[in-house]
Amino acid sequence: MLERLHLLGPVSRSKLTGMTGLNRSTIADLIGELAALGLVEEGPGLATSGPGRPSPVVQARPEGAVVLAVEMSVDSIAVATVGLGGFVYNRLRVARPRARFSPQETVYDVAKLAGPLLGSLPNKHAFAGVGVGVVGITRRSDGFVHLAPNLGWHDVPLAEMLVGELGLDTEVMVANDADLGALAEHRRVRPGVSNLVYVSGEVGIGIGAIVDGKPLLGSAGYAGEAGHMLINPDGRRCRCGAIGCWETEAGEAALLRRAGSPASVSGLDALLSVADRAAAEDETALRAITEVGRWLGYGIGNLINIFNPELVVLGGMYHRLFPFLEAAVDEGVRSRALDAPRAMTTIARSGLNTDAALIGASEMVFSRVIADPARAGSRAHAET
Amino acid sequence: MLERLHLLGPVSRSKLTGMTGLNRSTIADLIGELAALGLVEEGPGLATSGPGRPSPVVQARPEGAVVLAVEMSVDSIAVATVGLGGFVYNRLRVARPRARFSPQETVYDVAKLAGPLLGSLPNKHAFAGVGVGVVGITRRSDGFVHLAPNLGWHDVPLAEMLVGELGLDTEVMVANDADLGALAEHRRVRPGVSNLVYVSGEVGIGIGAIVDGKPLLGSAGYAGEAGHMLINPDGRRCRCGAIGCWETEAGEAALLRRAGSPASVSGLDALLSVADRAAAEDETALRAITEVGRWLGYGIGNLINIFNPELVVLGGMYHRLFPFLEAAVDEGVRSRALDAPRAMTTIARSGLNTDAALIGASEMVFSRVIADPARAGSRAHAET
Repeated sequence: MLERLHLLGPVSRSKLTGMTGLNRSTIADLIGELAALGLVEEGPGLATSGPGRPSPVVQARPEGAVVLAVEMSVDSIAVATVGLGGFVYNRLRVARPRARFSPQETVYDVAKLAGPLLGSLPNKHAFAGVGVGVVGITRRSDGFVHLAPNLGWHDVPLAEMLVGELGLDTEVMVANDADLGALAEHRRVRPGVSNLVYVSGEVGIGIGAIVDGKPLLGSAGYAGEAGHMLINPDGRRCRCGAIGCWETEAGEAALLRRAGSPASVSGLDALLSVADRAAAEDETALRAITEVGRWLGYGIGNLINIFNPELVVLGGMYHRLFPFLEAAVDEGVRSRALDAPRAMTTIARSGLNTDAALIGASEMVFSRVIADPARAGSRAHAET
Repeated sequence: MLERLHLLGPVSRSKLTGMTGLNRSTIADLIGELAALGLVEEGPGLATSGPGRPSPVVQARPEGAVVLAVEMSVDSIAVATVGLGGFVYNRLRVARPRARFSPQETVYDVAKLAGPLLGSLPNKHAFAGVGVGVVGITRRSDGFVHLAPNLGWHDVPLAEMLVGELGLDTEVMVANDADLGALAEHRRVRPGVSNLVYVSGEVGIGIGAIVDGKPLLGSAGYAGEAGHMLINPDGRRCRCGAIGCWETEAGEAALLRRAGSPASVSGLDALLSVADRAAAEDETALRAITEVGRWLGYGIGNLINIFNPELVVLGGMYHRLFPFLEAAVDEGVRSRALDAPRAMTTIARSGLNTDAALIGASEMVFSRVIADPARAGSRAHAET
């Protein structure tokens, strides 16, 4: 029930009874328990056309569980304070030159950004934890980042470092950014879709998948490294050391190369300038985007064959370029995906703009709160 | 608890108490209920070294739920009668020339094989349903086969046809053979492994995956068509119409082509003759297997990057050729998979020989029995 309130917003008591199939007294008991834990609250209902008193409205209480969400991306770091129900108290994103910052510097900068956000939270809130999304191969159990090539990091005990720097007595959960993009899209944008693939373009390509309503993690949390599937044996060497990975054909470097961008311009600026040229109908830029879109489509076709999803969501750089990419992606997909799964797949841009991973980082922690409300509640009690 | 008994075999009551964490009277109640449904039975315990009476032994009752398992493969059809707990009453496999039989003929042949098997079951058994594995893209909800290129079938309402031909008042569940291979491997061979990929070589390549303990189905059951991932854009045209699918490089045709097998010899005989030549250290055959193994490894590398499994299981033709393939597969995987996921993945041949899909077909039905024992039990009551 807490999950429904978190995902769907305020609901009348009578509607909750209908949705859950539980009887009225059980619903009342559950609401009572969650209210005692500070996680939900009831307000007067709105008058309806029906007879009798309007049913009270139940809703998640944002300050009942507040998460600090963090994203460490290639071109920026971002922090947000998010309350239960998905209420964003505050959000900050700071652009940074690429691959210039060590883990230690980044953790320090994150703590500096987070300070004022945490300081401005309502007095009586319960802090539920920290969720972090990072562009890298991350072990879920202890938030250890094996490799984040686009940040220039390897073997970073990121969760441990953040616990130290933030000085909060709380758990820090760390996950791959594309995995969190998929989670955010699934929970906050398309709660009805049980099978989706989120494709994130952040220099390289990472994917996150929701399989039968659950995040695909793999045995240690490394799943989703589809950017390194072999797609062209006669292609170029990838940063991972192998030849012809998907991201060597459909990633940012491939786009800039094909667009003839000067090697001196790099990073987000270079990408945005290609987008500007495309908007101004520059032929080379449009052709480059079309080629990248087709290769992107080939890989998405592979993923449709493998996962049979209902939805493929494009995030990161593909979100930015979506209007120019869409037709070529579709063409690439059509040439690869089998008819039966393709016919049921929609390809769309992310509904969360470029904040999918950040919002997903908060959802990762909320999932834990929802799985064990009493634990979250007891913390709330101790802290307020 | 029924699942444990089904998967693990006879267990003493006291051990069940320890395993489930339930108290003794709850265990006694549960056993009582399942025994009343005819699904489990208790026998005297074995004397142990400890003091007191030995704890009674509880076990699944095979005749409490009997499944007719069917496999429609490229080179054979097979049927088996399997009781709860995985007890195989009987099993028949008949070789057939390839792609010669219509769905109607195949269904008829299956019914002919199944008749005597069903007739020889113990008098007092409860029939739990029919499970079918087929080499094709299959919609789970109604057992409709969209496309089975290696059988030459498309748009076959297979479940419906089997219900008619078998004349049994029961449900028929149909699934892709590789999906069932994964299920069988997960449930009967490696119950402790929650993330595995089963790779089946049956002319083409199909995969089945277990993700966090659950079968990967996709939104309609089409998931696992990894045989059609683009792996070589300069490659050959696949039977699916696209260029350079994984199975064009690592499938049976690729092996026979590379081994210089005469075009007149085809099917299983051709494959076995390459294996024989390899066993006799024929250079061409060994080189062909090595090349196919390397491509097989490339694709497995992609799947390791995507799924981060603990185990990759090779079935079908790869099971037969495993001793010759193993080193080349390993080499291919090493050149593609990222270090972190690769280090935790084992690659092994199927523990069920070539019966993985057949056993998986029975497990698919048992999963339903276990999810709703009362329903299975009520049927048993009506029939015995």
